[in-house]
Amino acid sequence: MKRYEQLAEELASSIRTGLMKLGDRLPSVRQVSASRGVSASTVFEAYYLLEARGLIRARERSGYYVTAGGTSLPPEPGTACSYDATSLPVEVSELVFSVLASVTTREVVPLGSAFPSPLLFPLPRLARSLAYGANTMDPWSTVDDITPGNAALRRQIALRYLADGVHVQPDDIVITNGALEALNLSLQAVTKPCDCVIVESPTFYGALQALENLGLKAIEVPSSPRDGIDLGLLAQVLEMHRAAACWLMTNFQNPLGSLMPEEKKRALVSLLAAHEVPLIEDDVYAELYFGKKRPLPAKAFDQFGLVLHCSSFSKSLAPGYRLGWAIPGKFRQSVSRLKLMRTLAVAAPIQEGISDYLAKGGYDRHLRQLRHALSQQQISLATAVLRHFPFGTRATRPEGGYFMWVELPPGIDSLLLQRDASAAGISIAPGPMFSARASFKNCIRLNYGHPWTPEFDKAIATLGRLATIQLANAKMAPEAHVPALRRDDAIRRV
Amino acid sequence: MKRYEQLAEELASSIRTGLMKLGDRLPSVRQVSASRGVSASTVFEAYYLLEARGLIRARERSGYYVTAGGTSLPPEPGTACSYDATSLPVEVSELVFSVLASVTTREVVPLGSAFPSPLLFPLPRLARSLAYGANTMDPWSTVDDITPGNAALRRQIALRYLADGVHVQPDDIVITNGALEALNLSLQAVTKPCDCVIVESPTFYGALQALENLGLKAIEVPSSPRDGIDLGLLAQVLEMHRAAACWLMTNFQNPLGSLMPEEKKRALVSLLAAHEVPLIEDDVYAELYFGKKRPLPAKAFDQFGLVLHCSSFSKSLAPGYRLGWAIPGKFRQSVSRLKLMRTLAVAAPIQEGISDYLAKGGYDRHLRQLRHALSQQQISLATAVLRHFPFGTRATRPEGGYFMWVELPPGIDSLLLQRDASAAGISIAPGPMFSARASFKNCIRLNYGHPWTPEFDKAIATLGRLATIQLANAKMAPEAHVPALRRDDAIRRV
Repeated sequence: MKRYEQLAEELASSIRTGLMKLGDRLPSVRQVSASRGVSASTVFEAYYLLEARGLIRARERSGYYVTAGGTSLPPEPGTACSYDATSLPVEVSELVFSVLASVTTREVVPLGSAFPSPLLFPLPRLARSLAYGANTMDPWSTVDDITPGNAALRRQIALRYLADGVHVQPDDIVITNGALEALNLSLQAVTKPCDCVIVESPTFYGALQALENLGLKAIEVPSSPRDGIDLGLLAQVLEMHRAAACWLMTNFQNPLGSLMPEEKKRALVSLLAAHEVPLIEDDVYAELYFGKKRPLPAKAFDQFGLVLHCSSFSKSLAPGYRLGWAIPGKFRQSVSRLKLMRTLAVAAPIQEGISDYLAKGGYDRHLRQLRHALSQQQISLATAVLRHFPFGTRATRPEGGYFMWVELPPGIDSLLLQRDASAAGISIAPGPMFSARASFKNCIRLNYGHPWTPEFDKAIATLGRLATIQLANAKMAPEAHVPALRRDDAIRRV
Repeated sequence: MKRYEQLAEELASSIRTGLMKLGDRLPSVRQVSASRGVSASTVFEAYYLLEARGLIRARERSGYYVTAGGTSLPPEPGTACSYDATSLPVEVSELVFSVLASVTTREVVPLGSAFPSPLLFPLPRLARSLAYGANTMDPWSTVDDITPGNAALRRQIALRYLADGVHVQPDDIVITNGALEALNLSLQAVTKPCDCVIVESPTFYGALQALENLGLKAIEVPSSPRDGIDLGLLAQVLEMHRAAACWLMTNFQNPLGSLMPEEKKRALVSLLAAHEVPLIEDDVYAELYFGKKRPLPAKAFDQFGLVLHCSSFSKSLAPGYRLGWAIPGKFRQSVSRLKLMRTLAVAAPIQEGISDYLAKGGYDRHLRQLRHALSQQQISLATAVLRHFPFGTRATRPEGGYFMWVELPPGIDSLLLQRDASAAGISIAPGPMFSARASFKNCIRLNYGHPWTPEFDKAIATLGRLATIQLANAKMAPEAHVPALRRDDAIRRV
């Protein structure tokens, strides 16, 4: 552990134990530097790290203040839910599309959006790399860069994995149109229609749509907002069903924000390998960590080539560029051929441009700024939710990404809430979008991927008011508003 | 008809009737201008048109010469084939991928390639538009440009259709990752696994792979090298089978190069509409016409929204940019949603860049040059084939595109020829790639989309020699080399 990390750890501990409380001013950099005998830059780095982790925040010209602590954030939700291990066909698309359609205009406050603000990304710098790439591109790249993709780009991507301690070769990588295509192709490579696929509950609706698209059945396994899928239940399901694949997110899962610890990832990979079940790993949020380093993917523990790891630059660098990739292990040829058959290739100039940016664009510097912004925005959202949402509301505190999962008191119908919110110019992502059973009726996913403005604070206040009204109505006419599926009874606490 | 077109028609007629023969020098521009009383520019335009149609060619500083005529090109092949209207599952991919894998290095003479030379395209000018588009792009375009796609780009595409006499609105268009994605999505929108789909015989192998990918069965209907699918047989098939869709190319079909006349297109659309069978129209080569104007697509005659028209800029403007579109008629929402589920969007900078190019890049000027180059290259290839290929060889004379379909004498095994050619550093596309039944054993598709060089002439000579050797061997040991499927017996002449 470096000096500044040690210092940050000590200060974080003081905040956790309550020695320093919410709103307390931290000692000045000069004071700490003198009292500890460390350089000012070490103190700055420690403060910067604490800020990135959401524990303190700088106020202009007045120093650093504690912004988090035992009581300043909403309590955390538990793991879902009324557990049911039967498989079922997926038909979530109508709901998903109707919700997505309500987010398309810019006037709407995008709390339900799946995307972070494009203003947080180095689009002008990327445009320069793109112009350079397109201009200097060998005309034959238009042929050479077809699937598996541009060799220099694949090398840059492999180098990042290597730096993070994941052994990946350029030839292991297949470039795709965003992670979504990588995931769809991976799923198709390991399944045939009517197969069962294990997903988390709740899960990213894109996974449910991919299953629906390929005529697959879903088996939902509860996932904890803290550390991901329940391995005990997963083991049971693997005994009960012949699953063709398991699809999950190990790092900052959408919608929960959960982060699976390394040891659990290792156990997950060997559990699935013991059943010879391929793991489709959606790892698009890994670079958005607030902690010390990029959490390893499950791919890092893959000994048999059974992990089909998928990621992209859409959430970390280049929204709208649609550049993703698969590292499909022993299914590489299948994924590559499916890609050739479905979309042939990713645009050559895009590949050349991103490759140029990775080589010299300052990706790591951008990522530090982005992580910092997201962690700050999380605190703003959590603070607003605590202030405005009805008593009994719980919310996750992800250690990365830009989604907060909010569990409102039982009795709330998030689909109704979504309709009311939409009428008030606010989008939210209602819980039932994230489940083949339309569970999580009283949950919503909120996006904190946008620079925090008073508009967001106002929107959260409005949502809180709408929820409170709904609860009051439910109490007055309980038979009409109590959710059909009571899931809170069965909640197990983490 | 304009003056210069009239003049060109008269001269073409003189060539057809044999009044002017191969190698004859045409009267000089000044002579014609004086004798006909037309301006020199009118004569130039007429000569240019004849050159584009492959009838004459300029020699530097010595005027124009007749390059085509009754006897200067190989005879045309007839329509396939031993006709069998049963449906069957498709398993062509192994063959296709093994052939494609043999084309990947630049050292190979690319007669088997599916792509034209990238050197024929305005890549530097496109790079400028791309740089401009990426630089001036509103950051929110990364969200706004997701499927159905950038509004300005869809408007530009619609305007081109309108100019060509096809009534298309921007909102009818869904932007895709190349035509290949548009076709795959269109096919998925109108079928479910195990359905039967009617395709041409021979057909583009991408269509067969798309069927295979979705678990569909193919019904092959013979197609004429001159004017496309046999409507009589199609009508019979429609009576016999409940087809979920019909997939074909009406303009410069791959691999035949056939062009369906307008009246036949109209009849095709109404025949399919009478059976309520959607038509998936792959129209990627339409802009590469050598005649007077863009041939209309079948979409132009679509009254009920049953034609899913697909195209792209990959063959006409921007290879490697992967920008295509679907105009799916009444299946627009299905195609759009499938696109959102599979790949979400096309890269925003690519959409912005192409849109900018279309608005001010000089597309039509580029197209004129491209068409001229392709028509000249066709003559070079046809001349070489006539000179070097064994007696009895037939070859198509497409009025557009860059593929020639060559029917070698019976007894030739094009898969063997492909293997021998590959060893000699030459790629070809063997006939069985283009059929679910692996028919067309003695046919190959040759690409004339590359500037003609002595290297190509040499390659054609080598191919001719290899074919001649194969024929000689076949005569010496007929039992070993006569194709299992004798299809020449059943050939019907157009």
